[in-house]
This record gives sequence, C-alpha cells and structure tokens, in this order.
Amino acid sequence: MNDASKYASRVAAVLNDLTIELPSWGFADTGTRFGKFGQDSAAIDFTDKLSDASHVNRLTGCCPKLAVHVLWDFSANQQPAEVKSQAEQHGLRIGSINPNLFQDQQYKYGSLCHPDAKIREHAVQHCIDSIKLGQAVDSRVVTLWLADGSNYPGQDNLRARKGRLQECLQTLHGHLSSEQSFLLEYKPFEPAFYHTDLADWGMSLALARAMGPQAKVLVDTGHHYQSQNIEQIVAWLLDEGMLGGFHFNDRRYADDDLTLASIDPYQIFRIFYEILSYAHDTGRTPTIEYMIDQSHNLKPKIEAMIQTVMTAQELVAKAAIVDFDLLADLQARQDIVGCERHLKQAFFTDVSGLVTAWRVEQGISPDPLTAHRESGYLEVIEKERRQRRQELGIVTGGSYA
Amino acid sequence: MNDASKYASRVAAVLNDLTIELPSWGFADTGTRFGKFGQDSAAIDFTDKLSDASHVNRLTGCCPKLAVHVLWDFSANQQPAEVKSQAEQHGLRIGSINPNLFQDQQYKYGSLCHPDAKIREHAVQHCIDSIKLGQAVDSRVVTLWLADGSNYPGQDNLRARKGRLQECLQTLHGHLSSEQSFLLEYKPFEPAFYHTDLADWGMSLALARAMGPQAKVLVDTGHHYQSQNIEQIVAWLLDEGMLGGFHFNDRRYADDDLTLASIDPYQIFRIFYEILSYAHDTGRTPTIEYMIDQSHNLKPKIEAMIQTVMTAQELVAKAAIVDFDLLADLQARQDIVGCERHLKQAFFTDVSGLVTAWRVEQGISPDPLTAHRESGYLEVIEKERRQRRQELGIVTGGSYA
Amino acid sequence: MNDASKYASRVAAVLNDLTIELPSWGFADTGTRFGKFGQDSAAIDFTDKLSDASHVNRLTGCCPKLAVHVLWDFSANQQPAEVKSQAEQHGLRIGSINPNLFQDQQYKYGSLCHPDAKIREHAVQHCIDSIKLGQAVDSRVVTLWLADGSNYPGQDNLRARKGRLQECLQTLHGHLSSEQSFLLEYKPFEPAFYHTDLADWGMSLALARAMGPQAKVLVDTGHHYQSQNIEQIVAWLLDEGMLGGFHFNDRRYADDDLTLASIDPYQIFRIFYEILSYAHDTGRTPTIEYMIDQSHNLKPKIEAMIQTVMTAQELVAKAAIVDFDLLADLQARQDIVGCERHLKQAFFTDVSGLVTAWRVEQGISPDPLTAHRESGYLEVIEKERRQRRQELGIVTGGSYA
Amino acid sequence: MNDASKYASRVAAVLNDLTIELPSWGFADTGTRFGKFGQDSAAIDFTDKLSDASHVNRLTGCCPKLAVHVLWDFSANQQPAEVKSQAEQHGLRIGSINPNLFQDQQYKYGSLCHPDAKIREHAVQHCIDSIKLGQAVDSRVVTLWLADGSNYPGQDNLRARKGRLQECLQTLHGHLSSEQSFLLEYKPFEPAFYHTDLADWGMSLALARAMGPQAKVLVDTGHHYQSQNIEQIVAWLLDEGMLGGFHFNDRRYADDDLTLASIDPYQIFRIFYEILSYAHDTGRTPTIEYMIDQSHNLKPKIEAMIQTVMTAQELVAKAAIVDFDLLADLQARQDIVGCERHLKQAFFTDVSGLVTAWRVEQGISPDPLTAHRESGYLEVIEKERRQRRQELGIVTGGSYA
Repeated sequence: MNDASKYASRVAAVLNDLTIELPSWGFADTGTRFGKFGQDSAAIDFTDKLSDASHVNRLTGCCPKLAVHVLWDFSANQQPAEVKSQAEQHGLRIGSINPNLFQDQQYKYGSLCHPDAKIREHAVQHCIDSIKLGQAVDSRVVTLWLADGSNYPGQDNLRARKGRLQECLQTLHGHLSSEQSFLLEYKPFEPAFYHTDLADWGMSLALARAMGPQAKVLVDTGHHYQSQNIEQIVAWLLDEGMLGGFHFNDRRYADDDLTLASIDPYQIFRIFYEILSYAHDTGRTPTIEYMIDQSHNLKPKIEAMIQTVMTAQELVAKAAIVDFDLLADLQARQDIVGCERHLKQAFFTDVSGLVTAWRVEQGISPDPLTAHRESGYLEVIEKERRQRRQELGIVTGGSYA
Repeated sequence: MNDASKYASRVAAVLNDLTIELPSWGFADTGTRFGKFGQDSAAIDFTDKLSDASHVNRLTGCCPKLAVHVLWDFSANQQPAEVKSQAEQHGLRIGSINPNLFQDQQYKYGSLCHPDAKIREHAVQHCIDSIKLGQAVDSRVVTLWLADGSNYPGQDNLRARKGRLQECLQTLHGHLSSEQSFLLEYKPFEPAFYHTDLADWGMSLALARAMGPQAKVLVDTGHHYQSQNIEQIVAWLLDEGMLGGFHFNDRRYADDDLTLASIDPYQIFRIFYEILSYAHDTGRTPTIEYMIDQSHNLKPKIEAMIQTVMTAQELVAKAAIVDFDLLADLQARQDIVGCERHLKQAFFTDVSGLVTAWRVEQGISPDPLTAHRESGYLEVIEKERRQRRQELGIVTGGSYA
Repeated sequence: MNDASKYASRVAAVLNDLTIELPSWGFADTGTRFGKFGQDSAAIDFTDKLSDASHVNRLTGCCPKLAVHVLWDFSANQQPAEVKSQAEQHGLRIGSINPNLFQDQQYKYGSLCHPDAKIREHAVQHCIDSIKLGQAVDSRVVTLWLADGSNYPGQDNLRARKGRLQECLQTLHGHLSSEQSFLLEYKPFEPAFYHTDLADWGMSLALARAMGPQAKVLVDTGHHYQSQNIEQIVAWLLDEGMLGGFHFNDRRYADDDLTLASIDPYQIFRIFYEILSYAHDTGRTPTIEYMIDQSHNLKPKIEAMIQTVMTAQELVAKAAIVDFDLLADLQARQDIVGCERHLKQAFFTDVSGLVTAWRVEQGISPDPLTAHRESGYLEVIEKERRQRRQELGIVTGGSYA
Repeated sequence: MNDASKYASRVAAVLNDLTIELPSWGFADTGTRFGKFGQDSAAIDFTDKLSDASHVNRLTGCCPKLAVHVLWDFSANQQPAEVKSQAEQHGLRIGSINPNLFQDQQYKYGSLCHPDAKIREHAVQHCIDSIKLGQAVDSRVVTLWLADGSNYPGQDNLRARKGRLQECLQTLHGHLSSEQSFLLEYKPFEPAFYHTDLADWGMSLALARAMGPQAKVLVDTGHHYQSQNIEQIVAWLLDEGMLGGFHFNDRRYADDDLTLASIDPYQIFRIFYEILSYAHDTGRTPTIEYMIDQSHNLKPKIEAMIQTVMTAQELVAKAAIVDFDLLADLQARQDIVGCERHLKQAFFTDVSGLVTAWRVEQGISPDPLTAHRESGYLEVIEKERRQRRQELGIVTGGSYA
C-alpha cells in the first residue's frame, strides 16, 4: 500500500489549487419534466443563492465564486455594480456568466441557429449583454450551453445551421474584453432529440477555433454518449490547448445531473489524473474552470453541494498520489497489470486524513458536511423561506401536461 | 416487386382491426424540463381534449377512444357518468385510465414502493379510485406507468421495494372487475436515474404474473435500452400470452416521445410484422391496446396526432403484405438474403393507394392531414383558446430553475 | 471513517465463503476477431490448464475448481474418471461443465434454435453428453451460454425459435441428476447481431422457469445493455430464488472480457453489497457459483487471474463492512446523502490489512500477485511451452480475412 | 405522392455518379472471435477475389475498383505492375490501399502509437510501402484504420500516444504523391476496449488537419456511439471540406459489419440526402470514395455484395427525388410536419422502376441479384474452390480458445 503520508505536500498543493465554482441555480428548486419536488430551504431569489453559496464557501474553503444565469439571477433594472457588491458582502465573486438561450418562447426552433435572422439577432444581443454584464462584474468567463437542435429529420438544414452558428459566435468573440474567455459546451441530446447543433467535443472544438483565440471548450461530465471515454477527450483538449473548464456532475443514462462521482467515482478520478499528468509532463498548469452543474430534485441542495466539493477534493487528492514517473516506467515496459495496479492503488488509498489535515490548516471544519448539519443554517432558512414562499404565493411542483 | 393490389383485402382487414387510442395529454401543452413552448391551439381543459380527439377521429376513422389521466382530466366533484356522456356527445368513449403516481409532492421518494406505508396506502387508494372510475365510465383498461425509483446507490433497498410493489399490485388486482385488465408499463430511467423499480419487460412480466390473470405488460416503444430488440420482446410477450398493449412513439436517445416511426420506421414495421406473424401462425388474434403516448413540444399537436395515425396505418398495411408462407419457406432453407429481401420489399412497397382506397370506402378523406389543414378547425380553436387563455391568465413556459 | 478493524470477523467470514471458479480457457491464447497475441506461457493443453489453475489456487487459497469447456478440454477417448483424478492430483476439482454450441460449422444458423430438427438433436445430444460427463466427474453445475441468434430481420421466426429452445431445454432438464443444477446465461449480442435468442435476464428467467426446478439464471457481468443496472437484476433474481451464479469480468462497451472491476469497481462492489444485503435481510445464504469468465488478449494470463481473485476479495470485503442496520435506518428516513455516504465510505475504506491478515491466517502469501512474480513459475512454463509449441508446430495469431 | 417518373433524369444522374469500391476481404472467409463459418465459394487467393469482384462489377455496372489489404492480398515478391495488369484483365482497377497495422504480434500494444520507437518505425515503414505500392498500381487513395488503443486505465499515456501518432502521420503525409489522398478512419472501440487512439470523427479531423492538405476523414457507418447522428457528422465534414469517403455497412450494437441499410435504412437514406443537399446548395460535387466494408459470416459473400450495391443505388435514388427547394421553403416556415412528410415521402417512393430503367440503359440486368443466382457462377466456384481448398489442406473455422 502507498504510504499516503509522504504525499501530504502534493495533496495540499492540489487542494490549494482547486477552487470550484458554485451554480446559482443549484440552490433553487429544479426537477424533471415530470415535476419538481419543492424544498422549503430552496433559494427563492438571488440573495438566497448568495447566502447559500457563501455558507458552502465558508464550510469548504474553496468555493469563492458563484456562477450566474442571466435570465434567472438578474432583473432588468439591476445595476451590475450592485450585484458585485452584494456578492462581495457575502465574501463571493461572480463567476461564469451563463446566457440563457433555451427558455424563451421565441427560441422554439433555435436561437443562434434559428432560420429567422431576427431571432438570431435577438439571441446574439442577449449574449452581448451577458458579455458586457460579465465585464461590469469582473467576471472572466462566459459559458454557453446551446440547446439548439431539431426533433425530426428534415426539420432544418444541418449545414446551414452550422453556418449561422459560426457567424453568430464570431460576432460574439469580437465583444469579449481581453480578459474574458468564452467556453463552448456540447451535449448529445435534450432538449432536442433528432440533432443538437453542438453535439460533441469535436463540434465545440471546431467552432471554438473558428470563433477566435479566447474561445475554448467546456466539458460537462454528463454530456457524453454512453461508454465514451471522457478522460481521453480531456487529454486531447489539454494537448490541443483548448480545454476551458468543466461542469461537474455524474450520470448513468443521459444528462442526469447527479452528484459528481456518485455513479462512477473511478472515472472522475481518471479525469483528475489526466489533468495532473498533463501538468507533470509539461510543467504547465493549465487554466481550467471547475464548475458544478447539478440540479438536485431529491437531495437537500446545500448538502449535495458540500458533498460534491468534498468528493472532488478527495478524488483530486487520490490522483495527486499517483507516482507519475513510476507509472511512466511501468508503461514503457508495458507492464499492464503493474500500471493498472498502481493507478487503482492511488484510487483506493485512504486520503481522508490528508484532506482533513489540509482543512484544519485552512481553519475550516475537518468534516464540512457534518459541520453544515450541526450549523443550524438549514433550520433557519427553512423556516424563513417557507414563510416567505407562502407570503409570495409561490407553489412548487408544475405539471407535465 | 410485390403487386400490392392483390393484397387489398389483407390491407383492408388489418386497417379494420386497427383502432388507436388517443391520449388526452397529447393535446395539451407539454415540454421538457427546460421549458414548454406554448401553442395557442393547445387544449386547456378536458372539453378541449374531447373536441380535438373527436376531430382526429372524424378525420382518421379509427380513434374512437380517448385515454385519460386521472389527475389532469377529472376534477374531484365531477360525476363519471357526466364524463362518459360528454365523451359520447363527441362520438368518443373513454379509453384507458391512467393513475398518476409521479407528480404529487408526497411521491418524492416513490409511491407504491415508498418506504413509508402511509404513502403507499395513499397511492394504492388513488389506483383503486382509478379502477372504480374506469368501471363507472365503461373503460376496460387501467394502465400504470410507475415512475418510482432512486437516484443514488444505497438510497433504498431494491429488494424491499420490489416486495412493497408486489404487495400493492396484488391488492389492486383484487379491485378489478372481470372486464378490466391492468397493463403494467416499464421504463429504464427518468425521472429516476440510478434505478427504476419497473425498469424492463422482465420486471413488468414478473410482477404482472404475480398480480393475477388480468394483468399484462404494456410496451412503450420509447422505453428501452439503446439497441434493444423491441420486436423480439413483442414476440416473446405474445408467445407468453402477456402482451397487453402499446404506447406508440419513437425515440433516438431516451424517452424522447417523438412521432411514431419518425426516427426508425423499419423497426415499427417489424413490430407490426411480429404481431401479424403471430396471428398468422397461431390463428389467434391477440387483444392488444394500441395507444399513442407522445408529447409534442414543437409540432402542432393535432397534426402530429393525425400523422401518427396515418403512419401506423401505412406501416401495418406494409406488414400485411408480407407473404408469411413464402417467408417461412425461405427461412426453412435459411436463404438469408431471400428472407431479408422479401421483408424489405414489403416495407418499401407503396401501399398508399390501398390505404387511401380503404379510407374512401370508410367515407373519410383520402388524406386526413391535408383535410385537417383545410378544415379550418385549427384557426377556430387557436382564436378561441388564445382568448380564453388570456381571460384565465394562463401563461405557458415554466422555468428550469 | 469506518474503523475497519472492528469488521475483521465479518471480512473473514465473507472471504471464507468466497470460492471462485477458474476458467480453463482463461489460460489459453484467446483474442479478438482481429487476431490473437500469443503468449509463450499460455496453456497448450488441459494439463497445462490444470497446472496453471493449481498455481493460482495455491497462491490465492480460494480457487479449488476449474470450469471446463467440453469441446476444448476433453478428447473423445478420454475417460472422465481419468480427468477427475488428474485434477485431484493438482489439488483441484472439476467445476462447471460448459457445453459448446457455437463453434461447429453446423451451428451456422443456430444450435438449440436451429430450424433443422437434426441439428437441434445434435446440439441436445452434445448437452446430454456434457451433463453425463458432469455426473462422471462429480461436477454439480452445467452452464450454458447460447450463441444462437440471427443477423438480419426476417432471417428466422423469433417465436418459433423460442419454442424450439424451450423444448430442447426441457429435454435437457430431464437428464440432470438430482445434484446438478443448470445455469442459463444471457447476452444481448455477439456473435449474433440482429437478435439473440437469450438476450436478457428476463428471457433466461422465463426459460429457466419453463425448464424445471433445477434451472437458474447465470449473470455474466459483461452481458448487459449499456447503463443497465446489474445489481438490480441481481437483487430481483435473488428475491425470485433464481440467481444461479456469476461470470465475472468487466466491460466498457460490449462483452469486452476485461478484468473484473477494472473499468467500474463501484458497480462490482454494489453487486456484492446486494448479495450480502440479501443474506443479512433474509438470514439465508444463497448458493451462488462465482466463476471468472475473462479472456486476456494483452495481460499475462496467470497474473490477470490472480489480480481478479484479489480484486473480488477486496470488493466483497468492502461490501462486508457496510452496516446494514444503520443503512436501513438511514433509508427509512430517506436521508439520501447519509445513505450514499455510508455506502461509499465502505467502498473507499482500506480493507487491505484485513484481507492480508486473512491470507496470512490461511497460510498463504499476503500478496499473491507479488508471490507469483517471485515464484519463478512463469519463467519455467514460458520456456517449456515455447519449446513444446515449436515442436508441435503451433503458430498463434490467426487472420481476420 | 411524388410522381417518381419526373425524377428519372435526377435518378440517372446520381446513379451515374455512384461508383462503389468492393473490398477484397469481403470475398474471403471472415467471422467473429467465436469462429468462422466457411463457405465453399469463399475466395482463397487474390485471383479469386478479382474474379468475384469482376463478376459483381459485370452484374451491377458500378464497381470498377477493388480495395486491397496489403497484408492479405500481396506477397512480398509480387510485382505491383503484375497486380495492376491482373486486375485490368478482370476489368478492374486497384482501389484504396489499406495498410494493416493490427495483426502482427509486434502490434500487441499498438503500432503508430506504440511506446517503443522501433515498432512505430516498423509500422511507419509498412505504411510508406503501402503508399508506394499505391503509386505503382495507380491507386489514388490510402485508407488507414488504426486499431491502436489500450484495454486498461493507466496502461499507457493517452497524450503521449496522440503525440506519437501525429508525428508518424505527418511523416506519412510527406510520402504521398500529389495525386494520392490519405483517409483517416475512426472507431470507438474494438479491438481495444478502454481507449482507442482514433475514437471519433473529432480525433480523425484534428489529426487529418495536422497531417496536411491531402488527408481527410473516412466515415465508417458502423463506427459510432449508439444513437450518434451520423448524417450530422457527414454534414459537418462536408462543410469543413474534410469528408474523404465512406466505409459502407450497418450495425445494431457495435461494429457488426452487417449489410448496408439492413438495420436502419432511413439513416443511410439521410446520409445520401445530406450529400446531395450539399451538392445542391453549394453547386459543388464533393469527391467522396464510397467503399463497402462488410464481412459476412452468414450470408453468401457475392450475394451480399450485390445486395449492398443495389441497396445503395435504391437509397441514393430516393434521396435524389427530394425537392430541395421545396424543402428549404418548408424549413424556412418551420412547417415541421411538412418537412418530415416530404423527406419520408421520398424515402418511401418506389424508385425501383427508375433504377431498373437505368440498369437496362447501361446494358446490365434489371435485377443483378437474380441474374447472379441464375448465372451459374456460384456453382462453378463452389466446386472448384472446395476441391482446391482440400488440396491445399485449408480448414476454416478457428477456435475461440
């Protein structure tokens, strides 16, 4: 067995480097098309989201940024400066800005790919507004998930849509400040079922390159075909200098938005391993945005968020104790069983002591999840938000038909 | 090439036999978790649904029944007799009764499988009420899709849940009248993502058998693992005497609820072929409920319904012109290319003339879709429902977060 | 964190119970359709296989049985008594008997499902011979993987094939001695690509039930649709009293025959957890045959076998430290995060010390893999078999076309 | 319904343009890892393959080229000029040259990606030899399917392998004559199961671009993830100017190598539709190599080849009768049902008369498959090859273990 203790400094180093962005929408009630199960403690407004994110950041010590969805988090007459200062009061910064191009009724047949130039313009303008908003709140990252696609063969011209999309994206690149990067997500299906305009990493890569030097690819761990090798895609994007960041979650079937590593922890470990391996081999630390993108229909939202952060920390710590030089040597000799054994030994090594020690050093609780349960925070917000929800007449649920 | 004309009587016979039940929810606004795109013409209430279904039945001549979802279609104080008579006024009968066990807040962790006996009792009572309602409106079929499942390993005891489910189902069987049958659906995932309590046909078969003689299996064409051979499942269920019916739709990835045969028409043809082959080989015509279960987020709802019915008719007509004796002979000689050629020739034979002739004989339009577009029905309901929606203050859309 | 040491007795108990059968074919050269990569140390004949299996059993202390494939392991004029005694000389017993119905030229269109009654009779006779052979060598288990299927729609009558299969299997059941059980495997595809006659657990279950009381279902961990929940199938088969055994391996895409838990260790852990949970809840220890079915194209065969056994031991030990009562309590309260956390904590607990201690108590090496590498066994057989292969003129490789 | 007759000239035009390359290996005995089912008529040597291909070309009138696999078709001391002239005597030209990098024992851990530079050099040299051979026989296309990959996490460094591959491919590009193109295939898995070095179109595209201007991407219709939209990939590659050609076949699960359009004919139709749509919209006819890559384990090989060619002709003819302008108009109005109806009407239009008429005009049989069955060719080669096989002592079959 590995002597984990001798890896303490490596573990501390990767934990110091790992900041994870929280999603504002992860604190609100979300669900499936068959309905939402409401939680009293779910955030009602942006202030609630800031409060919850701040609580998670305090407990975990590594979540200083909150990703925002323009549509859900900002009102038209809200001043960006105000938002920024409100975040700062909660000890947070605004993280990635997410334009929203999938919900408006006008986007029924697409947004940036829509056959109608007027609707494309509208969508482009929304993205430009998002970019500007990002500049105003000192956010460095714009993240685009494009839901565009079609449901039936023949419904639209696939090549024409690609052309429209490329043109729109190039326009957007022109509006970025020199400090902003634009991350292009991909997803095989849902909400479109016959074709999705940005369906895989190859499509995002091609269009990110066509956009310009500040565009990169965003890997959502739940947005792949079944059995696709995600860590290989990560390795290729790193090698091509085009990996911009991650949306963390896990899945079994489709885009299930489950907690990171809840279904296949070994796979998430291997993703971290590829990133650390790249850093080891090249001596370069890539700039990667780590963002959580999960919607919890069943789990308590704050708990799930803390659990995700803790899980990511444990898995990156396990990846950090891989002995890359030893592994390279085993690989050179094609000692397959030896290679595999070394990698799995790292995965199964108990690093909880090292992670706990790091937390204590940071002045935070050795077990943030338990600390949360004991904090009383949940009880307070449950009571307050239940009552506010009643006063506002908000009913959660929704009906399929 | 086949001389399709000599198959006129066979085609007419299968078309005479094919009645397709329409889903009440298929006329209402539905969508994905990322929102609904509202249609002015979408049904607002049950009367609208009856009106739309009646229109489709008039145009197609083969949809005399409307499936209902207890939760969405009936109000507590509505008399079943009234519902039945209202349907009759539209020239319709009430088809399958669908209890709804997935939407209420109490079903967060399941309904018939829930760890809490109180909630199971509540769910059972809802199903009993549905069964009684079916008796009151002369419906012969209760159809259960069970959304129960869990999202995370360890969340609940899989075996215990199976036991609870079996017990509840056996209770329900005791409430069926001798004329009612109970169809048990299955689905691999969604809304549950780690495990679904009735995940595949084997599970539905085992529990239908455990329920009693009036329970059978319902095959939803969109509820299978990728690459699973649906027609083989149909053939097995027929052979076991356990095929109760179908929910018609198509899919590419998951439960996409697209129009029947829009993605893989050859597969739907093969399902019809298995059914006709069974009837040919055994001399028995199985009692099978054909029901549409589609939710159209993009397509006009009435058009999509008519298109589905027409597609089913064309495909069953193509299956009817297979020469089963000739094929059996080719199979006995294992002339694979010959077998395949014969089957595909039937699939590609132009049967539109035969189907059209049958429609004309029924006194209906040779092209129901065009007849619908020319009928003016859509314009009338669009105008009336748009206005009514405004008056009622109904806003379609919904927000993910 | 769990204090693993207090679980020492539970771990020892499950390790005492876990005997794993080795596959004779796992020591021979195997490959993909694109060729085999020969290993000097690969077994050439049955004596080699016995020798290798005996070596693995000596090192691991839990593999006293060798599964055999009638076609590859026995010559026509070999006396069963001789085989049995030869095995005993190696400290082994003959495990499951595997009839072989996929390789002969006559099985081109199937064996037990073949349209031609003569070929079905031939296949039945081969199975009867296998059953008798099993009786003669004191083997208790006959294991059938049926490769039958078709490649093209229409190639054969799916229902007729089911009927033929059922008839043949019922005949076979009549030849079992009262001590023999018959395990029916399933597999979605390969070598047949359009349909496979025993494609999923539901089909194996239906036909095992139709066979008679001594037939049960065999779960090969690599024979499932992508994203199918294997542990749920295991839980259902246990509950139905129909789980006969396992073929251990892992896969990423199809039936890849990789080392157990090499791709998704958490899943294999969950399978063990379901088995131990069943035993805990019911107080019954089910009779389950654990068999390895892997073919290593790249890994050294003996190493891979030892690695598999060690992996199974570690994972069952991890499953053994789950506190079932505590988990049941968390489940009753639907504390999802608590449930998940408890299960994963068991999975990640370092049990290597407990497993090592158990080995030392058994008088075997604490690290069988290292013991093997240091034993010199490989070098001896490599040299001897390389030379023998040359003398016999055996060339490994094979050509795709 | 479409009046197919008015489309006669369009159908004739696409049929004139469609030449399909036959694979030499498609006439030889191939199989699965579980064995090969020998056919008396299977080609034994290259002369047989030329004879069979020539027979197919005579009957179909559109297969003037034979793809060759360097390893299986050429002996070391054979003069390329001789091969070329032998082909010409059969009325054929040598089509694509396929280097073979997967079968030799030295390629156990890879070829162009192998950790050992010596083996990479050996593989590069084999490819250079193939390129030169292509020049010598006037073949314009080199086609590379790379089987390289790994079976276990950690087995090799994914990024390092990418680097090695890129370097080798760039070297190869330098050896191409100005008339040669190099087509890079991709495949998600098999024979490697954990990762494949060229796993998807995005990887092939990235490396084809890195190679140089004469490299393009080859789409094998069977080499995709389940549910992946192949026609979208085709549309993107066309738009990027990087579509080099196709390997035609069909599949249900994995790389099943079934007859084109035997499982999902609508999908293959949509691929042709994308190609013709590109030509219509841009006025450019792309240079696309259409090649069959099928291995028939069950079907008679020559029949299967003829059937494939006939199927491709029927489907491209159906695609040709799509009214692209009308469809564009329907798309602009987002008349989804109208779009879909138009596309499917083309798919279901009976074009057999038009295709037959074209054949008669070419002076070939209106039904090549029947013509083959009546030609007596099969009986002659069966007898001759059966005898020759006996004389040569060739036994087909092979054993899994």
